[in-house]
Amino acid sequence: MKKYFHADEWSIIEEGLHPEDNRIYESAMSLGNGHMGMRGNFEESYSGDSHQGTYIAGVYYPDKTRVGWWKNGYPEYFAKVLNATNFIGIDIMIDDEKIDLAKTKIKYFKRVVNMKKGYLERIFTIIDDKYGELIVNAKRFLSIVDTEVAAISYSITPVNHDVKISFIPYLDGNISNEDSNYSEKFWTEVDRAINEYKGNLTMKTKKLDFHVSTSMKYSVLEDNNSINGTIDIIDQEKFVGNKITLTGKKGRTVTLNKYIAVTTNRDYDKSEIIKISNERVTYAYNKGFEELFIEHVDAWDKRWEASDIVIEGDTEAQQGIRFNIFHLNQTYTGDDPRLNIGPKGFTGEKYGGSTYWDTEAYCLPFYLSTANEDISKNLLIYRYNHLEKAKENAKKLGLNGALYPMVTMNGEECHNEWEITFEEIHRNAAISYAIYNFVRYTGDSNYLAEYGFEVLVEISRFWTSRVNYNSYKDKYMILGVTGPNEYDNNVNNNWYTNTMASWNLEYTLEVIAYLKKEHMLRYTELENKLNLTEDELSKWQDIINKMYYPYIESINVFEQQDGYMDKEQILVKDLPKADLPLNQNWSWDRILRSCFIKQADVLQGLYFLNDMYDLETKKRNFDFYEPRTVHESSLSPCVYSIIASEIGYEDKAYELYLRTARLDLDNYNNDTEDGLHITSMAGTWMSIVHGFGGMRIKDNTLCLNPFIPKAWDEFSFKILFRGNLLKVKVSSEKVFIKLEKGDYLSILLYDKKYTICDELIIDIN
Amino acid sequence: MKKYFHADEWSIIEEGLHPEDNRIYESAMSLGNGHMGMRGNFEESYSGDSHQGTYIAGVYYPDKTRVGWWKNGYPEYFAKVLNATNFIGIDIMIDDEKIDLAKTKIKYFKRVVNMKKGYLERIFTIIDDKYGELIVNAKRFLSIVDTEVAAISYSITPVNHDVKISFIPYLDGNISNEDSNYSEKFWTEVDRAINEYKGNLTMKTKKLDFHVSTSMKYSVLEDNNSINGTIDIIDQEKFVGNKITLTGKKGRTVTLNKYIAVTTNRDYDKSEIIKISNERVTYAYNKGFEELFIEHVDAWDKRWEASDIVIEGDTEAQQGIRFNIFHLNQTYTGDDPRLNIGPKGFTGEKYGGSTYWDTEAYCLPFYLSTANEDISKNLLIYRYNHLEKAKENAKKLGLNGALYPMVTMNGEECHNEWEITFEEIHRNAAISYAIYNFVRYTGDSNYLAEYGFEVLVEISRFWTSRVNYNSYKDKYMILGVTGPNEYDNNVNNNWYTNTMASWNLEYTLEVIAYLKKEHMLRYTELENKLNLTEDELSKWQDIINKMYYPYIESINVFEQQDGYMDKEQILVKDLPKADLPLNQNWSWDRILRSCFIKQADVLQGLYFLNDMYDLETKKRNFDFYEPRTVHESSLSPCVYSIIASEIGYEDKAYELYLRTARLDLDNYNNDTEDGLHITSMAGTWMSIVHGFGGMRIKDNTLCLNPFIPKAWDEFSFKILFRGNLLKVKVSSEKVFIKLEKGDYLSILLYDKKYTICDELIIDIN
Repeated sequence: MKKYFHADEWSIIEEGLHPEDNRIYESAMSLGNGHMGMRGNFEESYSGDSHQGTYIAGVYYPDKTRVGWWKNGYPEYFAKVLNATNFIGIDIMIDDEKIDLAKTKIKYFKRVVNMKKGYLERIFTIIDDKYGELIVNAKRFLSIVDTEVAAISYSITPVNHDVKISFIPYLDGNISNEDSNYSEKFWTEVDRAINEYKGNLTMKTKKLDFHVSTSMKYSVLEDNNSINGTIDIIDQEKFVGNKITLTGKKGRTVTLNKYIAVTTNRDYDKSEIIKISNERVTYAYNKGFEELFIEHVDAWDKRWEASDIVIEGDTEAQQGIRFNIFHLNQTYTGDDPRLNIGPKGFTGEKYGGSTYWDTEAYCLPFYLSTANEDISKNLLIYRYNHLEKAKENAKKLGLNGALYPMVTMNGEECHNEWEITFEEIHRNAAISYAIYNFVRYTGDSNYLAEYGFEVLVEISRFWTSRVNYNSYKDKYMILGVTGPNEYDNNVNNNWYTNTMASWNLEYTLEVIAYLKKEHMLRYTELENKLNLTEDELSKWQDIINKMYYPYIESINVFEQQDGYMDKEQILVKDLPKADLPLNQNWSWDRILRSCFIKQADVLQGLYFLNDMYDLETKKRNFDFYEPRTVHESSLSPCVYSIIASEIGYEDKAYELYLRTARLDLDNYNNDTEDGLHITSMAGTWMSIVHGFGGMRIKDNTLCLNPFIPKAWDEFSFKILFRGNLLKVKVSSEKVFIKLEKGDYLSILLYDKKYTICDELIIDIN
Repeated sequence: MKKYFHADEWSIIEEGLHPEDNRIYESAMSLGNGHMGMRGNFEESYSGDSHQGTYIAGVYYPDKTRVGWWKNGYPEYFAKVLNATNFIGIDIMIDDEKIDLAKTKIKYFKRVVNMKKGYLERIFTIIDDKYGELIVNAKRFLSIVDTEVAAISYSITPVNHDVKISFIPYLDGNISNEDSNYSEKFWTEVDRAINEYKGNLTMKTKKLDFHVSTSMKYSVLEDNNSINGTIDIIDQEKFVGNKITLTGKKGRTVTLNKYIAVTTNRDYDKSEIIKISNERVTYAYNKGFEELFIEHVDAWDKRWEASDIVIEGDTEAQQGIRFNIFHLNQTYTGDDPRLNIGPKGFTGEKYGGSTYWDTEAYCLPFYLSTANEDISKNLLIYRYNHLEKAKENAKKLGLNGALYPMVTMNGEECHNEWEITFEEIHRNAAISYAIYNFVRYTGDSNYLAEYGFEVLVEISRFWTSRVNYNSYKDKYMILGVTGPNEYDNNVNNNWYTNTMASWNLEYTLEVIAYLKKEHMLRYTELENKLNLTEDELSKWQDIINKMYYPYIESINVFEQQDGYMDKEQILVKDLPKADLPLNQNWSWDRILRSCFIKQADVLQGLYFLNDMYDLETKKRNFDFYEPRTVHESSLSPCVYSIIASEIGYEDKAYELYLRTARLDLDNYNNDTEDGLHITSMAGTWMSIVHGFGGMRIKDNTLCLNPFIPKAWDEFSFKILFRGNLLKVKVSSEKVFIKLEKGDYLSILLYDKKYTICDELIIDIN
């Protein structure tokens, strides 16, 4: 396997410029702060292959749905993640010649993302017959303290001669989307202003009227002392900049510090965004690069303190997991309940929309365990706020209750393939499951009374209208669905879907019992609001009692769907290597009629409803399904890995873990250039904490069953649990647990109860 | 129901102009001659709503496939039926003012297609304060004798005053497609020439390099005597014409006869098409309008002689069936084996491609019974010629043998929805069935040795690689298919598909036995060419023996597919009226999981393999499936009608017949404006001949079991059978059969054998 990055515990490093793989490096070197983000592009112009990308959270474009055969119920648009004003731009001219690393001769080049401190730095030396050597250092970060602020420090040191240097800091709104089928521009200019040392460019989207105002301000220093140069003003449509020209003296460092602020009408009134972005940039400018940076690093320290995983004895594994945690923290910060976790985050434009079931199924556990309760609560509130739209969506399909969209930006469905949009309805159960998961983790049952119950009821109503009663068999069935395994479409009775639907109804009934007991007043209020009747509840119970589950009797295994066993049963290991990945080598119909599974489906159910199944059942199903699974979704191996850990298949668990751990860093799926697989990064975290760490929550108690993979000397992770911060360190000899915050905590370790006040050390064996 | 056309036995008549429904009239008044065709547009400019359409057989455009999620195996393009040079154009100016029936005052208007003689005529009177009344008569036809030739006779008679008249005959290549998503033009000019009285415009398509050369020549007469006028030449890019101005004298008729010839590089070398189209147009000009017309009418007489159906006592039914026969004969003449029967013929642009399984399943029987054997043979040769492409198509999907495309122009697949393109594989069986049908009808077994066998073998190989052996059940299954009923997608074991696949293998084995006996040398040759082995044949036999057929035991009915009975069983009659048609009112997933059937599926099998099932079986299956069928394909009711006729459900048969008989004339599906449903017209013919007439072929013998619908007094149809032309006339009292051509013919009538030399009259009851 080709190695792109040097192994390093805290950094992602490119040594020497690799123009042929530049997009891969750009993706991996993306920065984000929840409010905005960008790929690891250069500040100065680059004529080589590059995908320039700047993204503002929540700003998107509704692209018209175009399909061959229009089906009733299709959404009208696809929500495109939108490339926005490029604000990092600083062109450099040396002796009136533009620096372009695709053409300029380079003596040395290094591009680094420091994950501990959250910045991107490039250090390079260019060389020219005329002016000799110049050392360049460009460092930037997007503040996680003031998320509307970015700062860049760009330094040049002439080694051999005095040279004429021009810096051209600019804002460029003349951008388009990489994945656009046509060359349409999505932005028009609202306003621009440019002066010496400062400028503003305000753009709006052609549809949906998103306004984004970007301001810049800069200063120029020589060896840390302010200097002046001659300034030309650049004022063009959709483009503002300064050209500041001065003499770079031999051996002295000239630095341009560029400060940027980005505001949108998502947060302020349209009439105010320019004023506010100018204020923010002035604030940043006055604070200065160093002080902004120190605050930023302090904030990162706190994030790492809560979420770091340390692996001893395997630098690549260490780098891989930190890379994942770093990007999860860059993508979603949880302070805006209108936002969610896009599949590519701020690292690319592929796939539309920002919210998939990935959020509830894969990402929530990470934020539950590593961040304040409010963060994960906001992920739930996001869906609560979309309840009305989910109800409209169900109605559009002729169904009752709420059907949450497969892909969305604002609560509306924006995916348009019938087998997914209309049929991959299991996503609805993940929304309910997230409520259950949140409550059991945080113990915050009030959430049910306040928000959760309404969502549970409407989803239960959806299931009730979506099942169909088969009078021949006296069973309820769910026909025409696509399960998590998208390599089967339009099947009947997907075991996972039926199981989760029934669980969902059962949980809603449980919550009713709880509310009746603990929140009687509120319950009565909700009962009236929702028009709940006893008949309706009886119907739910009837469906629970008579749900049909496909089953393979001969081997005592849950059948993925009706007719799965009619497929020819071949194992992945018996496939020719050249056939893999199937999705690149087989026609779609061949994939569909094969027994091969894209991602955890029955196993997803065993993971979610972990308590309902004994180890033997998990083992039998794992033994049957894992050899048939091609893991061609990045979300697959983590679930299998966790179950493998649980049933004692330690080597298998580790092998599966490796498939996602460095997915993007090692460009495993040959698609890192499009951006990173943000949501699956949470799966990797789960493989360690829920898998190797064996973490579960049962009856309000944190349970751990750790083991260490053979390849590692030691690993440790941190868990925030109900206000307590716990560090868990595991080696082959012992488990060390430290309560880093909190007074005391009772846990179950290897099924034995301990109360930890400070530290606990247990010898294994 | 709104009535668009006056009932008339031989004509399609619009009385008075109906601008709001103009597109419907244009569709219904289309003319075609197999080589080219056009909608019933006006010769003179019309600024009202209109869809100008001229189409040249076999000339198309490959439009790029654009889908959301690209699936391996998708074709690269969709074959667009292409609008070509408008050659009917004759603009009229009276006293320098353009006639435009959307603006000019009309006193009288009539538009008529005479189906007996194959022409379109408009007679109208315009009126103006200045010049008083003018009577206009415009008549045109596309010669079915010289299919490259068209002729128009355009006459104007001033009633009140002498008036200045200008005729502007032209050729316009500046056209675009109605159904285009973007305003792209598909044609560029190759050459143009314009002189007095004649011109040529030669265009080529931007892709695939189709060249079409159109020539015109004209003469002007006054009361049948040649006169001259002043001539201006119009010579613009993609447009050539003359403006001829003269005085129209009160009470005298001025006539412009325009002759057109259209040649393409499909038939001649590119370098020759201009010369040849000029020669052709000169030939037509020299012959003159009247003589061309007489030849044309004679040829139509012959066509009607062979294919007419006469219905007494029901003028609308008479008009309906003649309309269908007329358009079938206009669309396909069978003299070019590269052509086929497009779903819209020459009447519109909706749907791409020209060939669907409609040809083999619905159209072939019509041409077999009403035209020379060569015509239907050419339909078969068309597929034989595409065998190599069908093999490539199968290979692309990872399968052996040949998979014929769902939609095609030149043998390549050009449809791109996975559930259709990849899964609606039953189409392959229709190709084999057509061979079987042709041979049993014509008795031409040599076709098997010459062409048919290779196709049968390669299709058999396809089935062999597409089935999958289920070792648990010791059965062969066909998973992941879409049957004829497209309201179920990606199902397992569609009964029709499994049945036809097995039949297909069996027939191939029968043909082998026949060839071994009758064509041993040729068989040995083919055996070597095709690499046939005994093992392969045994495999086929094994599949036949162990094919799995879904079955509903409780009611002794074939199950449409696995799991069909798990659907909620509701009947169409119990649906709210407002829900119909389902495809306009229900979301796609709801349609898919419902029990409702779009078109004959199990019943299609009972129709094709008619001999294999007894009446009771047909009855049971009809009784079960018909009440569940919404007939939302125009191809559905005819098959049900035929089976209803056979099992004695005469009223039901007639009711179903009515659903297609006047589908387009009565705009039943509210889509006549897009063009006509050409292929389903053959289904209507079948409903009468195979249904009411009870026509079958068994053991080389023509069988008839006629009955007459209560609403009719008498009906008669003609059948060409192995060189004999038979007229069959049925009333409620008797059946009259006349051998109009041929020496004698033995037939089975009501299961009794008769040998007819001249006439046969049998009393019913």
